[in-house]
Amino acid sequence: MYVLHYYPGNANLAPHILLEECGVPYRLEFVDREHGALESPEFLKLNPAGLIPVLVDGDLVLPETAAICLHLVDQHPEAGLAPEVGTKERAHFYRWLVYLTNTLQSRILVGAYPKRLSDDEAGAAVVQRQARAQISQSLDIIERQLANSGPWLLGERFSALDPYLLTLCRWTRHLPSPARERPHLKRLLDATLARPAVQRAHEQERLTPPFY
Amino acid sequence: MYVLHYYPGNANLAPHILLEECGVPYRLEFVDREHGALESPEFLKLNPAGLIPVLVDGDLVLPETAAICLHLVDQHPEAGLAPEVGTKERAHFYRWLVYLTNTLQSRILVGAYPKRLSDDEAGAAVVQRQARAQISQSLDIIERQLANSGPWLLGERFSALDPYLLTLCRWTRHLPSPARERPHLKRLLDATLARPAVQRAHEQERLTPPFY
Repeated sequence: MYVLHYYPGNANLAPHILLEECGVPYRLEFVDREHGALESPEFLKLNPAGLIPVLVDGDLVLPETAAICLHLVDQHPEAGLAPEVGTKERAHFYRWLVYLTNTLQSRILVGAYPKRLSDDEAGAAVVQRQARAQISQSLDIIERQLANSGPWLLGERFSALDPYLLTLCRWTRHLPSPARERPHLKRLLDATLARPAVQRAHEQERLTPPFY
Repeated sequence: MYVLHYYPGNANLAPHILLEECGVPYRLEFVDREHGALESPEFLKLNPAGLIPVLVDGDLVLPETAAICLHLVDQHPEAGLAPEVGTKERAHFYRWLVYLTNTLQSRILVGAYPKRLSDDEAGAAVVQRQARAQISQSLDIIERQLANSGPWLLGERFSALDPYLLTLCRWTRHLPSPARERPHLKRLLDATLARPAVQRAHEQERLTPPFY
């Protein structure tokens, strides 16, 4: 049985939704990050980068949200959460998954933890302001993609990309320019949240509105 | 025939090496980034994020280094550059590919362009210093992985991860703590550079020492 190490509303939400979409047995393992659990020797054995989520699948210990998503779509092709390997659609899937993890998510994290790149309050404020401008630029790129080739990030079909996008857009909900202000993005987020599997994952993590 | 949009020594080096490793026909298309080519309307149609590499494969236009690597390993399984889909080894492959793109590469880019997160020279210096500390932390994590389960990033077998790692480590060659100072990393870099396909890609991009 899968075990997903998680904290409510963290990046684990994306693979958590996928587990629900796949309808496979799994167990959530709470990581008490507010009390130093990410820095504990036990956790660092699971992921030396000290980050959740981590998926445990038998003797496989797998950190990195995007990697967990790829593993799950490969293990459960019948769930139809990603195009078949070797197709052009699969390449598009990779392209947006990589963009979400290395650009949108990275920028959101810089904006959320600006002190990691500064040494005083004033510097942190500048880092945060610039990071937020970069986040907006990334959301605008995704909005244009959806306007041209929506309604889902992969076009006509829902895929594992959309719960990942929902998870990241959630983190923009209190920013000056949240994702939901972009109409195509908002429609995607609404449609994703309406799915029963997504609802179940939100309930299990005890997330409350606003969701994005 | 594949067309790879590139600039010497940029992230394109990783998929360029893979094309050589696969032994498939391709053409390099120079992007004159020093003269604004990344911001041209023609290029932004290929990649709205304004970044190289972009791989063109028939009517498929594919940005994002890690996505291009995934596409190439899927298209050419006979080259053996990634484990078979569905295996635990494939999950490890995803894990490290994602880590390279969303953590090591992201941090290197922050350190290389600190002005994007600051509004004066002093702020940029702080961003760069902190980013360099983060880069060192990532390289240390990779070094420990190699010490425990090397000599390649995937263990006993060379894979597409290693040219990607070489490409990123190249960018650390002038930093205070370059990748090559870590013994297991240095051995991996030396062994990767020694491969004929890697040599050919370096020659075609006209790269000169130090390579990392």
